[in-house]
Amino acid sequence: MRDFTFFNPTRIEFGKGKEANIGLYLKEFGVDSALILYGSERVKKNGLFDRVAASLGEQGIAFVELGGVISNPLISRVRDAVKIAKEKDLQAVVAVGGGSVLDSAKAVAAGAKYVNDVWDFFVGKAVVEAALPVFSIMTLAATGSEMNMAGVVTNDETRQKYAIVSPLLFPKVSVINPELMASVPRDYLAYSAVDVFSHCLDLYFSASYLPEFSAELIEAILKTVMRTTDALLKNSNDYDARGEFAWAATMALNGNTFVGVEGNTYDTHMIEHAMSALYNVPHGAGLAVVLPAWLKDIKNQMPERFERFADKVFGASGVDAGIDKLTEWFSTIGAPVTFAQAGLSEDAVDPIAENAFGNAKLWKMDTMYPQERISKILKLAV
Amino acid sequence: MRDFTFFNPTRIEFGKGKEANIGLYLKEFGVDSALILYGSERVKKNGLFDRVAASLGEQGIAFVELGGVISNPLISRVRDAVKIAKEKDLQAVVAVGGGSVLDSAKAVAAGAKYVNDVWDFFVGKAVVEAALPVFSIMTLAATGSEMNMAGVVTNDETRQKYAIVSPLLFPKVSVINPELMASVPRDYLAYSAVDVFSHCLDLYFSASYLPEFSAELIEAILKTVMRTTDALLKNSNDYDARGEFAWAATMALNGNTFVGVEGNTYDTHMIEHAMSALYNVPHGAGLAVVLPAWLKDIKNQMPERFERFADKVFGASGVDAGIDKLTEWFSTIGAPVTFAQAGLSEDAVDPIAENAFGNAKLWKMDTMYPQERISKILKLAV
Repeated sequence: MRDFTFFNPTRIEFGKGKEANIGLYLKEFGVDSALILYGSERVKKNGLFDRVAASLGEQGIAFVELGGVISNPLISRVRDAVKIAKEKDLQAVVAVGGGSVLDSAKAVAAGAKYVNDVWDFFVGKAVVEAALPVFSIMTLAATGSEMNMAGVVTNDETRQKYAIVSPLLFPKVSVINPELMASVPRDYLAYSAVDVFSHCLDLYFSASYLPEFSAELIEAILKTVMRTTDALLKNSNDYDARGEFAWAATMALNGNTFVGVEGNTYDTHMIEHAMSALYNVPHGAGLAVVLPAWLKDIKNQMPERFERFADKVFGASGVDAGIDKLTEWFSTIGAPVTFAQAGLSEDAVDPIAENAFGNAKLWKMDTMYPQERISKILKLAV
Repeated sequence: MRDFTFFNPTRIEFGKGKEANIGLYLKEFGVDSALILYGSERVKKNGLFDRVAASLGEQGIAFVELGGVISNPLISRVRDAVKIAKEKDLQAVVAVGGGSVLDSAKAVAAGAKYVNDVWDFFVGKAVVEAALPVFSIMTLAATGSEMNMAGVVTNDETRQKYAIVSPLLFPKVSVINPELMASVPRDYLAYSAVDVFSHCLDLYFSASYLPEFSAELIEAILKTVMRTTDALLKNSNDYDARGEFAWAATMALNGNTFVGVEGNTYDTHMIEHAMSALYNVPHGAGLAVVLPAWLKDIKNQMPERFERFADKVFGASGVDAGIDKLTEWFSTIGAPVTFAQAGLSEDAVDPIAENAFGNAKLWKMDTMYPQERISKILKLAV
């Protein structure tokens, strides 16, 4: 066991109808005004926005609303929101949506308390020293953002997809109501499953030291995701499956899997962020392309762990069996596993590798991942 | 998945030498003075107390020390400590020891901010509305108290072993340094393993609804405890085993296993608290006697779950196999599994059952556990 600090103060409110208490949750933190951030107009049409607004109203909490956050969210939109939060002197940010909305909300929360440009936090030019409290009501389970301190946003001008990270950005309260996720389209359910796999497998296969308990926790998360995704593709209203899927997604990136681990990196995320930054591929779709290719590239470095993975997660044996079964399952649920299936041509390899190498430098992974190696991995998926 | 709230703001600082930072951790919370609570003089002899005192001194934090907390800690001792904390207007409580010391520290923290007798919190006469911040440096892993909001203390006069529970009692920071646990005697290691088993199996076998992920998490904790206990009985200086054991103990009672569960109760704890309150049996030793007996009593209520337990935890098959293997393993590691082995005669059955029924009433379990049923369970262990 390597030394670690575990700290995660986010409160999760899980269950049916919990979004109706959001005003109470804000009030507990002494909040009198808030920015409600959301994505598509779907939350307006299906009544969710109105329930949130009513709950804030009941507690006398004034709010300003701002919609239009897109997947692979943009820093330009964050800047607009920061401006509003500053002008109106708002005291909190409430995200109603999926990971893109919540990641944007975290950036807004930090930007609203900062005198210069919020992008500074993403490129390491500044450290978050204050932030508005963040609350979330999740309509998609995938990124784990509801219970962690990171947010990923793309710079529209530079096409850099970077992260803001600070303990001040843990949401104070996150609402997970599986019923709000019942209408997630099948393709986004698949992308979400892939995202959770990637959060787990980046760690599982990059760690130089992986405690047995961490390995078992990850395997339990992966098996839960597979079982519940299969169940949801059969019946999208399976409440228990939706709830277990959501909690598995939260657990995959709330710090528990990292306990006592050494040397882990976000390899597939480092590469995929380039793909979605440049070509606006859905994050989970990009990961489905990158993950099997990355696994093929590294499999000979740790054959025992690959054999264990095949055995514990798929009941199969051999180094390659786990990769094959994983790829096959991604295909079964409708995730793309090649460039072509993701709508990309081979010409995209070089720009993606170049952009990803920028991530590698920022994440201090450039020694391990020279641009040529990234190209080589990407070509395994062409 | 049933509705739940998950909230656990305790920060864990895990690793070698982390106790030397305790002054810094207190300082982060603006603390200028503290009560250092400990148990036996062992922490004085082995230098741990001096390291803690030096760290507080470096940060200019004044402290008063109070030792002598015993296992199955007493409310009389807590009252003494509360008096000191009030008189000296101390701002924090630092527990240096195992679960008994930390549980006492939590009671002191609440009592110091309360005008009446601290026992009121244990019998439901008052609710904790303020508490001093609690910090801990653990020398024994078992109770999970380092990352939860409960403390169990015995009333010396009434022989009631009851609990104080409040979100205000989550430790702010808990230090887990496996090296500090290397000198735990073999019998206490065994009792600790049993305590963790009991925290897990009370939930696993009492829940009317147990999500698959929760079951897998519990099974992973149990397997970790067995593997590491066996390793530590061979080599008490196995750092990784000590660390994994400690983290498994923390995970067993920090809320993660309870997620989405319905109808769980603390059955063996309800019974065992009577045993250790009346006869001062070590808590884990008492649980080793009660747990197999309780499992025999309930096995026909949920045969599928018993079959699963046997399979997943012991690789055995059948309802009885799991109970037999568990009892056998408890014996192998040196835990008592009968009244006689725990130094109790059959005459103890009635007093224990009567006292336990008091717990059952307080915990609203008396309909399910009339005194005769508790006697019947206890007799299975005579």
